[in-house]
This record gives sequence, structure tokens and C-alpha cells, in this order.
Amino acid sequence: MRKQKVSSAVIRRLPRYYRHLTDLHLAGVERLSSSALGMSLGMTASQIRQDLSCFGEFGQQGYGYNVDKLRGEISEILGMGKGHTAVVLGAGNLGRALMENFHFDRSGFELCAAFDVDPALVGRQVSGVPVYHVDGLEKFLEEHPVSIGVLTVPRGVANHIASRLVAAGVKGIWNFTNIELMVDSAGVIIEDVHFADSLLALSYMISEEQ
Amino acid sequence: MRKQKVSSAVIRRLPRYYRHLTDLHLAGVERLSSSALGMSLGMTASQIRQDLSCFGEFGQQGYGYNVDKLRGEISEILGMGKGHTAVVLGAGNLGRALMENFHFDRSGFELCAAFDVDPALVGRQVSGVPVYHVDGLEKFLEEHPVSIGVLTVPRGVANHIASRLVAAGVKGIWNFTNIELMVDSAGVIIEDVHFADSLLALSYMISEEQ
Repeated sequence: MRKQKVSSAVIRRLPRYYRHLTDLHLAGVERLSSSALGMSLGMTASQIRQDLSCFGEFGQQGYGYNVDKLRGEISEILGMGKGHTAVVLGAGNLGRALMENFHFDRSGFELCAAFDVDPALVGRQVSGVPVYHVDGLEKFLEEHPVSIGVLTVPRGVANHIASRLVAAGVKGIWNFTNIELMVDSAGVIIEDVHFADSLLALSYMISEEQ
Repeated sequence: MRKQKVSSAVIRRLPRYYRHLTDLHLAGVERLSSSALGMSLGMTASQIRQDLSCFGEFGQQGYGYNVDKLRGEISEILGMGKGHTAVVLGAGNLGRALMENFHFDRSGFELCAAFDVDPALVGRQVSGVPVYHVDGLEKFLEEHPVSIGVLTVPRGVANHIASRLVAAGVKGIWNFTNIELMVDSAGVIIEDVHFADSLLALSYMISEEQ
């Protein structure tokens, strides 16, 4: 389906399109012109057409987009139906917040297990997901190949745990530790969640309002 | 200092420049050519020059950028020295994770207080920050004007609490609830942290690697 190397900026916009189309779908919208879709996303119709053209032909001249169909196509582009799996590393506050509140399944991921060292957590379940001792990480990953590790450990052990994940063959690391991981990650995708980038953008915007 | 309306894409890149310049500064780098800065950010020198040109003249032909000076200038553009303040709404797992691990001060924010309804939390301190009952929110905000509310409440009460923050005069809401807030937010900036967008981008990238 893909025609060309897709820029990082386009990849970053796809989840937003997906989220927006989901909202439209839930609101009962069945089809939408490209200009209406653009307006509701704060973009021009041609920007959206250009983004989507990286992946093929979508929509129909004079008809616009079928919301549910386009949503399904973007879901497929994003790999949401590939049966991705995840484990959480570090079931502290942030790890548990994700396990309890974040819907991994809505992004196409099955959350299989969490790992920690805290005796108060190991052997328990959080939101139905078992918490194991991190000593058993490699054995678990050998028996249950997982796509990504969700890294919510203290930053002091972040690189060590990340290296173990990479060595055990995960495809990606979703990094919440706010540090740049220094692992030999050839072929492993590291996706950083930078809370500070978001807060600084907010800082800029409220400063402009003053 | 500002010359023109700055696009959202540029605003989103500024924190990344700041973060990168901080890393360079900590690594002892004193100055850098624009092409070296570009390369380390995966951009071209001219893209960076164009972004920065929205805010004035930076760097010097043939000399490049003074890392610490440019970092300071971007910090100023981002409003990091404006004495912004924050309160956390919802001291559950995610709220506490942010209070305990996220360095608000490094983004120029002072974290003043948190609000919750849980009797086990109200009256206690988390990382030196007092947790008050949410009933006292309006009185607190009247006595201590704060810049932003950090919204980490359950999604069922997110809009209600957001409306109270807006009515009490905050300038921005840092929204972690994964819902689109439906508040009358004229003049109030809402910054959403969409974990799912990040995970879906990762899903795309690991799917491509397969």
C-alpha cells in the first residue's frame, strides 16, 4: 500500500486523524468533505490529501471521505490490527496509572504483564494484569514474544532495563523516563514521551496570552 | 521580540531545541554550527534558521550558535522565566507520578498544591506539595493565582473540574485525561497529552520494521 518513505511529521499526524475520525464516528457522522475534515482539524483540505496520498488513494472527488472507512484504513496503516503486545516495566505510580487507566487495546495492543522489584507488587495483579519480578523478564519474553516494553522505571535503572528489553528482542520501547536512552538499539524503535515538551509548549502559549 | 504569528509546528519544535541544547550544554558543548545542530536534530540547518527567524536573529554567520546563549534565548521565548505556577487536580496514580517524578521547576513552573477528594490523601503532602480537598479549590485559587491546572482526575469528572478551573481564572489546563474537554475556554489554553497518539506512532514504526 505504501508508495514512498513517509516523513515523521506525517506519521505524527496520522494518530490525530484517527482520533478525530473516531470522535466523528461516535458522533454519528458518516461522511465528510475533505475541506470540512480539514477545518475541524485546523488544516487545509490539500494538506490532508497530501498526507494521505503517501499511502494510496482515499476519498472520492465530490463525495468526500466515508468516516468509518477512512478510520479503518488509517487504523490499518498504523498497524493496529497486527496483534501487538506490550509489557510494563516498573509498576510504580506511572506504570499503574497506565495499567489502570490507559486503554492499550484501543491502540491495538494487548498488555500481557508488568515487571517490578517491589515485594508488595510482585505476584499481584493490577487491572487484571500480572506483576512479575523483573528477574524473570528474559524467561517471560522468551516464552511470550512481546512487541514493546513500556518503560516506567526510575531513571537510574532506565538504561539497564532498556538494554535487557533490546537484548530480549522487543521491537520498540515506549519511554516515559524523561531521559534519552543510551542503548544499542539497532532495529529497535524508541518512542519517547516527553512531558516537558508539552508543558513548555503550554508555557509559551499562556505567556503569549498575557 | 516576536515578529509574526508563529505556527503551531514551530512552537512544538522549540521545546525539542531547548531539550537538545540542554543536553549539549551538559555535555560541555559551547558552540555548534547550524548544520551540526541540524544534523543532531535530524533537520536541515535552514529549517532551524527559519524556525528561529520567527523570533529574531540568532547565531552568527561563520560562527554558529553559542549553545548556552541560544538555550537561554529559547527559554525566554518559551516563557520559562515568567514565574508560572501550577496545581494538580487529582492526586491518584498519575497525579502522584507527576508530583514525585516530574520536575516542574525545570520547565519554569512552581507546583503549589494538589487537590483530591480521597480522605487518605487530603491533608497530606506528596513530595513536599500539600494535598487539599477539592472543595477548597476556588478559595485557594483566589488567594494564590495559578497559571495552570494539571488535570489528572478520572475522566468522568474531567469537564466539571476543568470548568471550575476556567471559572477560577487559570490561563491554561494541562490535560492528561485523554478526553477532549468541552469547556467554555475562551482565552484559556488547553494542552492535551495524548498518550495514544504516541503509542500509535510507535505501532506504525514497529509495523514498518517487520
